[in-house]
Amino acid sequence: MNSNSFVLKGDFCYSRDPRHLETVRDGFLVSVDGVSAGIYQILPEPYWGLPVEDWSGRLIIPGLTDLHVHAPQYAFRGLGMDLELLDWLEAHVFPEEAKYRDLDYAGKAYGIFAGDLKRGATTRACIFATAHTEATELLMDLLEETGLETLVGRVNMDRNCPDFIRESGARSSAKETVRWLEETSGKYRRTRPILTPRFIPSCTDELMERLAEIQREYHLPVQSHLSENGGEGAWVQELCPASRFYGDAYDAFGLFGGGAKTIMAHCVLSCDEEIALMKERGVYIAHCPQSNTNLSSGVAPVRRYLDEGLNIGLGSDVAGGSSLSILRAVADAVQCSKLRWRLLDQTLAPLTVAEAFWLGTVGGGSFFGKVGSFAPGYELDAVVLDDSHLKTPLELSVGDRLERAVYLTEERDVAAKYVKGQKIF
Amino acid sequence: MNSNSFVLKGDFCYSRDPRHLETVRDGFLVSVDGVSAGIYQILPEPYWGLPVEDWSGRLIIPGLTDLHVHAPQYAFRGLGMDLELLDWLEAHVFPEEAKYRDLDYAGKAYGIFAGDLKRGATTRACIFATAHTEATELLMDLLEETGLETLVGRVNMDRNCPDFIRESGARSSAKETVRWLEETSGKYRRTRPILTPRFIPSCTDELMERLAEIQREYHLPVQSHLSENGGEGAWVQELCPASRFYGDAYDAFGLFGGGAKTIMAHCVLSCDEEIALMKERGVYIAHCPQSNTNLSSGVAPVRRYLDEGLNIGLGSDVAGGSSLSILRAVADAVQCSKLRWRLLDQTLAPLTVAEAFWLGTVGGGSFFGKVGSFAPGYELDAVVLDDSHLKTPLELSVGDRLERAVYLTEERDVAAKYVKGQKIF
Repeated sequence: MNSNSFVLKGDFCYSRDPRHLETVRDGFLVSVDGVSAGIYQILPEPYWGLPVEDWSGRLIIPGLTDLHVHAPQYAFRGLGMDLELLDWLEAHVFPEEAKYRDLDYAGKAYGIFAGDLKRGATTRACIFATAHTEATELLMDLLEETGLETLVGRVNMDRNCPDFIRESGARSSAKETVRWLEETSGKYRRTRPILTPRFIPSCTDELMERLAEIQREYHLPVQSHLSENGGEGAWVQELCPASRFYGDAYDAFGLFGGGAKTIMAHCVLSCDEEIALMKERGVYIAHCPQSNTNLSSGVAPVRRYLDEGLNIGLGSDVAGGSSLSILRAVADAVQCSKLRWRLLDQTLAPLTVAEAFWLGTVGGGSFFGKVGSFAPGYELDAVVLDDSHLKTPLELSVGDRLERAVYLTEERDVAAKYVKGQKIF
Repeated sequence: MNSNSFVLKGDFCYSRDPRHLETVRDGFLVSVDGVSAGIYQILPEPYWGLPVEDWSGRLIIPGLTDLHVHAPQYAFRGLGMDLELLDWLEAHVFPEEAKYRDLDYAGKAYGIFAGDLKRGATTRACIFATAHTEATELLMDLLEETGLETLVGRVNMDRNCPDFIRESGARSSAKETVRWLEETSGKYRRTRPILTPRFIPSCTDELMERLAEIQREYHLPVQSHLSENGGEGAWVQELCPASRFYGDAYDAFGLFGGGAKTIMAHCVLSCDEEIALMKERGVYIAHCPQSNTNLSSGVAPVRRYLDEGLNIGLGSDVAGGSSLSILRAVADAVQCSKLRWRLLDQTLAPLTVAEAFWLGTVGGGSFFGKVGSFAPGYELDAVVLDDSHLKTPLELSVGDRLERAVYLTEERDVAAKYVKGQKIF
């Protein structure tokens, strides 16, 4: 046994399955080589020699996974959300992302992002950078230092965006992508590349073809955007008249799951055929309720995705979302599902807190393997929450405290965090 | 000039009108006898002798007003919101409120509520207690000590609720109300009574008649609930078949604005006639977006209320809402208006941050008089926010920082607070 072998003492809550929470008060969670050996009410003899970290009275939950976040947009989180997607990209996103050609600026901005991601309750994240190779590598260096497990994408975009941010052609975009992959190959323990065509409107057919080749050669996972907003969907239809639906435009190039593990963010407006294809191909949906609210996109039919057994987790989508907190995303997912039910479609029942918590832990975590639970065999990602400032005269169960934490945790309530059995603070 | 005369130095943001923010960087806000004498870039000579509190670099905004909050429900904030209104009242609210017959319990619970309300960004609040006279007086004692300006209501309810919480008849309810008014008369400087029939389903006609008499005799303001939820509305129609609409059932007893300053919480489902009558009678609407989301009630048509010039402010509605923060309610109001626009009704444009901030300051504050602004003549309620932990490489304007504060302020970011020119911490 190594330093990833230890015992955490405290009050535990995690998902048994999408509908049920498992709770243990005053238990012992055993980590052996960074993997959970289970939670016990009485510590079994074989583990008596392990060091114990005593968090008695604190609430310990699995690390959260952020399946969709834009690191360069963190600088303007909470600003300028009075526009819909396409206008917002032009007004706020592209001008900001252009700054990352300047490595000094990138270092300052990405340093803040990495520091705040480290301090929150997220242990795994799938991250968009920009189209700048050096800045993307700098971001990966900074993330590696945090101790988090992340996938990072250098963004590809060679059409339909301003000169100051557009790459100079498919060939150059692909070449830079290969340079980035080669330069970072084998460099990190916790930080890996993910292929990141921005979205269909930003990528020529030639670029998509070249990216598909790169994907196959380097066996990369893939992340992009799908069916977020009505205006966007109509534009994709114009750009790709042969596509039967938005996801079909990715699929035409072999970039829609199947061989490659793939995340598509949003899926607010996916049609039946698109949903069927996502299921068939095992595509992950990154549900981003706060962003979909802020940009007036709508609310994804998460109940349907859950019931039909699609792969799905949560994303902060900073800076469409203003908060990096995936616990906040859990609450947002519940709340948005209630308004969707009330205002739009009473055939899809609202999500429960247990279901949304599952999305934020096991649902998204499974993109990284056995992640997001304390059941034996899962990689040991754990977050210690200090909920003592939420005073109440009531005797609360551990499950009550989880529910309250979902609605009321503030970022600085995270008292300690463990990733793959490593304590990162 | 007295101790309520001083100068605050810092970065200021407040509403010039519902659509526009006024901002001053590195300015001087002058308080003379607890009333704003304006903000100056250079401090005028007549004020040179006043003490200066230097909050340079901090964001200073007017105090927020919470037009609707239930103090006894604070104990279970963030819990049990998987039900709609009427079932939620039976399952959670009534059993908890019954505990306030025990003054020890009430002291513990209300002490937590008053302490947290003091520490947040709220400076004025309209508060529901329970039907227990002693506990309500205890709550008023505790609130008086906080330095906040509040209106507190002993709740009336003599039908359609469980025995353990129902008052024993209209006469007894009215008599206890008078006892409460007499016992607290002249006792406080900052804490005043507000007549509080729970809502139509909880109050017999006889009780409403007696309360109307009490209102006229004591010249009390009034608070209650209106058109929150579909099931509730149908029930009121059954209970009051002669009423043309829900508000008409209050109006039949003279308890719907006009002579009495009146707050009606929610107004999610108000019909044209009800809206017209609220406007005619100057009834205040307490818009409670988080509660209306959590209890799946819907989203009030706030754009319409603003455009038609109705009186309207924001409420946390704890524990239908889980957060006491009215800054959070500002963000919620914007976000819910976006989903209402997208999912339900594209004739009513979403709220801007400036509009929702106006609701949380001037809109609700006006129920208390000239409150919620730093314009000359307004009572000096000010909140100093430390937003330094929201790091960014961007140069932000004061207006940008206000927008960001709306989305990202955590309760403990409040560094100092002044109410009517008194520093309360």
